[in-house]
Amino acid sequence: MKISAIVTLKNEVLDPQGKVVKQTLKNMGYSNISDVRQGKFFEIHIKEKDPIKGRKLAEQVCKKLLSNTVIEDYKIKVDE
Amino acid sequence: MKISAIVTLKNEVLDPQGKVVKQTLKNMGYSNISDVRQGKFFEIHIKEKDPIKGRKLAEQVCKKLLSNTVIEDYKIKVDE
Repeated sequence: MKISAIVTLKNEVLDPQGKVVKQTLKNMGYSNISDVRQGKFFEIHIKEKDPIKGRKLAEQVCKKLLSNTVIEDYKIKVDE
Repeated sequence: MKISAIVTLKNEVLDPQGKVVKQTLKNMGYSNISDVRQGKFFEIHIKEKDPIKGRKLAEQVCKKLLSNTVIEDYKIKVDE
């Protein structure tokens, strides 16, 4: 089973990386880009056939290792 | 308009970050995780109402700045 997890900074947390990307795009002439926020993406392959169990495992992994839940949010999607 | 872009290493390219995450999860006792690949996530806010133009702009941005197309792939999703 393949699971996608996206970890992003919470909206109220400053995102310096995203700010740099936005400024660079502005300098390159892309004036209609109003904001960019950067995050992390994980593709997790799990030996598990039950999508509910797979999602539960991915939630645990996100909480314990992949994200810092004080400043970050995570989203999980079961791909296949 | 909000557009999500995910940049990942091509499958044939070694992903040391993903390997470290996988090994760490194994050490934490998650034995049924067979592989992890890590990538970058970008949330791009564009002042544009036409989803076709928005997607085109995001493609340009991914090609020129956000990804290295020699070793990386990107996926774009128009969110709203």
